[in-house]
Amino acid sequence: MIRIIQRQIHSRGNLQLGIGDDALILKDGNTVLTTDTYAEGVHFDLSYMSYYDVGTRCACAALSDVVAMGGEPKVLVVGLAVPRETDLRAIRQLYRGLERICKEMGCEIGGGDIIALDRLVITLTALGRAAVPLLRSGAQPGDFLYLTGYAGLAETGRLILAGRVRLPAGTAGIRLAVQRHLCPVPRAQVMRALGLRISALIDTSDGLGSDARQLSVLSRVKIVIDPDQLPLHPVTIKLCQQLRKNPLEFALSAGEDYELLFTSRRNLPQMIKNVKITRIGHVREGKGLFIKEGEEVVPLKITGYDHLAE
Amino acid sequence: MIRIIQRQIHSRGNLQLGIGDDALILKDGNTVLTTDTYAEGVHFDLSYMSYYDVGTRCACAALSDVVAMGGEPKVLVVGLAVPRETDLRAIRQLYRGLERICKEMGCEIGGGDIIALDRLVITLTALGRAAVPLLRSGAQPGDFLYLTGYAGLAETGRLILAGRVRLPAGTAGIRLAVQRHLCPVPRAQVMRALGLRISALIDTSDGLGSDARQLSVLSRVKIVIDPDQLPLHPVTIKLCQQLRKNPLEFALSAGEDYELLFTSRRNLPQMIKNVKITRIGHVREGKGLFIKEGEEVVPLKITGYDHLAE
Repeated sequence: MIRIIQRQIHSRGNLQLGIGDDALILKDGNTVLTTDTYAEGVHFDLSYMSYYDVGTRCACAALSDVVAMGGEPKVLVVGLAVPRETDLRAIRQLYRGLERICKEMGCEIGGGDIIALDRLVITLTALGRAAVPLLRSGAQPGDFLYLTGYAGLAETGRLILAGRVRLPAGTAGIRLAVQRHLCPVPRAQVMRALGLRISALIDTSDGLGSDARQLSVLSRVKIVIDPDQLPLHPVTIKLCQQLRKNPLEFALSAGEDYELLFTSRRNLPQMIKNVKITRIGHVREGKGLFIKEGEEVVPLKITGYDHLAE
Repeated sequence: MIRIIQRQIHSRGNLQLGIGDDALILKDGNTVLTTDTYAEGVHFDLSYMSYYDVGTRCACAALSDVVAMGGEPKVLVVGLAVPRETDLRAIRQLYRGLERICKEMGCEIGGGDIIALDRLVITLTALGRAAVPLLRSGAQPGDFLYLTGYAGLAETGRLILAGRVRLPAGTAGIRLAVQRHLCPVPRAQVMRALGLRISALIDTSDGLGSDARQLSVLSRVKIVIDPDQLPLHPVTIKLCQQLRKNPLEFALSAGEDYELLFTSRRNLPQMIKNVKITRIGHVREGKGLFIKEGEEVVPLKITGYDHLAE
């Protein structure tokens, strides 16, 4: 689909970087721009989310793309389609959610457009500034692969909220998982602290496996993931036990954690600005995404998930 | 609705101009940004429009907001929601339409996002650069009010396409009207030619009356429209006769012409860069929107149309 679209598009020299990264970069070299559409029933579920939650979640996802370019979000514009019967208070709550995240990130809502539709659809466009953009294509052989936070935690939270699993009350991590689904605040503090020590950067939205593959393809390197190092929260392991899922496959394919997945030549500490950092693999010469299996290194098949194919 | 939203939004100094004009302006003073959402059945009708037409029409509307700020469109990003069964050729046609207008305007499609939904919804965000932005708030007493093209021509075209009227084959202007609905190319050449001779500028999207009222409110002036001067195309008059509509009311309330409505102190020629220019009124001290009725000047009640209220 993206290839078909790309063939219709012609460059006129206004962009430094077009389709293919988390956001595009304008000719000035530091303005980044990104757009995302979120629809009820596809990206969020009003049966267990408030309008405020929808606002925080969508704002986090949109601003995450700016952070994943090494940028600071500056403006968020909002294209809103709402059912005609929607209560004005609901719209206000939605905006409160958007505003809460913008405030946290130093960003500003610049207005937008609102139309009536049969269901809630939100398109958010974020503009940010990056002194030096961090791309998906910068990984070098010899780098290590790092991940912030936990893998699959947001999807764990979503399945709990959707009632797909019943964990004993008081199970540790339920709140954390739910929070990561409803309000996955981008890890801007880690991006800022590391800056150019990051060689390639992406946010995990399509699934860890799929996103790592993007880094390998765009950097033209081989990436090897060490499954023993993947940061799985105990609540995710409990959920996988109940649902009879393989935790490793779950962690590699679950989407929308909005964690930072990045490469760096450096040995990094396990905690940066209060955020957990885990070395989950390394970069080699070659191409493709691989995973350790005992002493072997085998190609990784998992592709993550695709909203269009779901 | 907009007032409710505005109350939720807080400034953080990233914008020079926020909600209220055709687009927002970033702190740098020349980056303009605007977003619009278009939905099947609300803004376009696939029963008589091809996907290519949808592309041209939506791109024209989006880029019009940049031109209406005195800006040159540089990048267009596309948030697309399409029904799952949509043919890939249809998406390609849609992009061809977008690309055709971008090419004409020197703009570039920077990619975007695509999701599955039960109907076609397009959110376009346009970024442009304006050396000196032209605002809605710059009209001065003593200025004249001008309009490019014809008033109500796009709506005439829409009603013809929708089969709401039967005009004799060969009626002059049918093609022109249909074209203005399907492909209302922004009048950038007029904006460029006039530049700072324009004191206040808006594009006519909500309806001439409503848009003129915006100029009067934001410029804190009284605007008087001379109904005898309104440029009505003969095809619009014929359509109004058949539909038993008052042509003046029609011209003042019909939306989405995407013509330039502007004020200028100067006496302008009737044609600029091959585009018809008509002086349709003037600006006085005071406030509100008025219309000449014989020797009198009376407040104008028509408000244009509102997609949410339709």
